[in-house]
Amino acid sequence: MKVLVLGAGQLARMMALAGAPLSITISAYDVNTDTLVHPLTQQQLGSGLAQALEAADVVTAEFEHIPLAILEQCQASGKFLPGASAIRAGGDRRVEKALLASAGVANAAYQVINNQADFEKAVSRLGLPLIFKSALAGYDGKGQWRLKEAAQTASVWQQMADFLAADSSQAIVAEQFIGFQREVSLVGARSRTGEVKVYPLTENHHVNGVLSVSLARPVDHALQHQAEQMFAAVAEQLDYVGVLAIEFFDVAGQLLVNEIAPRVHNSGHWTQQGADCCQFANHLRAVCGLPLGSTALVRPTLMVNILGEDEVPNAILNIPALGLHWYGKTKRAGRKMGHINLSANSTAELKAQFAKLIDQLPASAFPELEQMLHQL
Amino acid sequence: MKVLVLGAGQLARMMALAGAPLSITISAYDVNTDTLVHPLTQQQLGSGLAQALEAADVVTAEFEHIPLAILEQCQASGKFLPGASAIRAGGDRRVEKALLASAGVANAAYQVINNQADFEKAVSRLGLPLIFKSALAGYDGKGQWRLKEAAQTASVWQQMADFLAADSSQAIVAEQFIGFQREVSLVGARSRTGEVKVYPLTENHHVNGVLSVSLARPVDHALQHQAEQMFAAVAEQLDYVGVLAIEFFDVAGQLLVNEIAPRVHNSGHWTQQGADCCQFANHLRAVCGLPLGSTALVRPTLMVNILGEDEVPNAILNIPALGLHWYGKTKRAGRKMGHINLSANSTAELKAQFAKLIDQLPASAFPELEQMLHQL
Repeated sequence: MKVLVLGAGQLARMMALAGAPLSITISAYDVNTDTLVHPLTQQQLGSGLAQALEAADVVTAEFEHIPLAILEQCQASGKFLPGASAIRAGGDRRVEKALLASAGVANAAYQVINNQADFEKAVSRLGLPLIFKSALAGYDGKGQWRLKEAAQTASVWQQMADFLAADSSQAIVAEQFIGFQREVSLVGARSRTGEVKVYPLTENHHVNGVLSVSLARPVDHALQHQAEQMFAAVAEQLDYVGVLAIEFFDVAGQLLVNEIAPRVHNSGHWTQQGADCCQFANHLRAVCGLPLGSTALVRPTLMVNILGEDEVPNAILNIPALGLHWYGKTKRAGRKMGHINLSANSTAELKAQFAKLIDQLPASAFPELEQMLHQL
Repeated sequence: MKVLVLGAGQLARMMALAGAPLSITISAYDVNTDTLVHPLTQQQLGSGLAQALEAADVVTAEFEHIPLAILEQCQASGKFLPGASAIRAGGDRRVEKALLASAGVANAAYQVINNQADFEKAVSRLGLPLIFKSALAGYDGKGQWRLKEAAQTASVWQQMADFLAADSSQAIVAEQFIGFQREVSLVGARSRTGEVKVYPLTENHHVNGVLSVSLARPVDHALQHQAEQMFAAVAEQLDYVGVLAIEFFDVAGQLLVNEIAPRVHNSGHWTQQGADCCQFANHLRAVCGLPLGSTALVRPTLMVNILGEDEVPNAILNIPALGLHWYGKTKRAGRKMGHINLSANSTAELKAQFAKLIDQLPASAFPELEQMLHQL
């Protein structure tokens, strides 16, 4: 099978690595340069989307911030999975919020803001504190504002007004602030035949709005069930095919959807080592019409992102059940350069191994790992 | 790191897949065509060995039947690991037998045959039955003769005489026939600093001289210890760096070395799923000077070779902890096209899963699996 992936980053790269053993070859379409590349070698394979679509058996995406014209062209090919509307639901917070409402899954109350009247309505209807997120291309803490006290109202609105004035395609979504205990995510797959398999809930720790650590360990059954029900509702609403990730706020055991990602997800990288079939293989199995692989937890596993660094001490490779995954990218401050997976036979053992790993990583490049260790 | 691999087959391909996450890029030199290719995409990257050696940080090999001139050119680069003499020990049975003698490890008594006088000496000194193997390029049952009864002596010698006359570089090694209970192999790695880590002994089942199934399960400690001692003796004798495989005959608990393979080995493919660090990653770690990864058995795992077939029923992908690995090769009768790895939490569970797998595979393409199941 030949699979065309929109986007040529690390997710396409890891799909290529997972696809090769299944005889699934991946080419990656760089939306910005209109070129087709091999996601592992970055060798240029051609240019132009029409030809790429023609040559592919299946088309999918590694990210959701994709121009509408490209999504429509892919959709018209009849080969696009999970398809344009699912990608748009991940890429446009207005669409996403409407989807969550129609799927009937709990999420923060919200108000779409296109102008000052909308803004004032949001403040009066939802109350403070409020969090505002740009409708398009807002992720990892970018395009977000907070309004905690009434005194800040004018200045916060001015920033948002400038933002809206600069781009007519944009809107802002105001959300009630959720006082959550922790953030968890559920990564799972839905097949062409509607079969759903989900991995265990993953606990996620962010630093400055960017994912730092994901942890998968045996999980509370009731919470897992709750997440699975919501996952199935969203996936069915979208008639989804492929891997889907849903981020939740855990508010005293009640899950609220924060956002969805219609793709393989950073919080699912641990599946390369902690599950029989990783999210990349399962995404390809789903979109190619193959049976889904097992998503059961094989052993407790955590993942640490490597941000803005292109080396780590080689000595960490002495730790058993440690996998180091570089993405082959050029170093840039804050950039996702790679990740480390670490597994153990029990949570206690994982904690001990994590402590050894932390000892060997420079704290400046890996902040707050100690705090995360103590939560284990 | 840039690693050049002599040979562009499935072993180089699986090295490329294991190396990418470690930021180790592999290019493969096709000894027959003098071209350099990417082992995954088969994209041609250049031609000529001198340039390829110049561009590489490390040179290694995926097979041992390599012309001496090429081995010498690689050795002269100062980058070749495990190096020309180790590769020759795997590629020339005369050198191999001399190595085993100097390492002091048990193996079948032998006699090198260059002419009829040598042949007669072998028969009188070693006695019947005898097995004869070509010194060069004999593997998977090719270039082998057997002499069971004295009445066959003249006809067997005539075949061997014709063989020797056809190629002056050849010789034949006569070996005492070993009445072994089973064939096992030990795959392990030795680092640049002399550290040795070995995987558990693997039980191997051949059909018509070609490996069909390898099985790794918790192993008898005394036997494992015996194999490890012999492994260390051979690896030290060669000052070996990289993954080395040793095939043994198990004669009532006493191991005799059958042959060595100075490379990653078909009987180690199960490590992709049954160990934390697979043989391909460990080979690259060793030759690149990185710490060796864990070789402990994570769970019982077996491997089934796919020979001469380019498809298997998709339904096998429903079996949990099953990994399907295609090599991207064109179908040819008997050719190694891919393999299936299967893991379980216990040997009993593995047996049950293996039975399910056998039910779904066509018996014509996968002969004798039932017999192997009963030995589990």
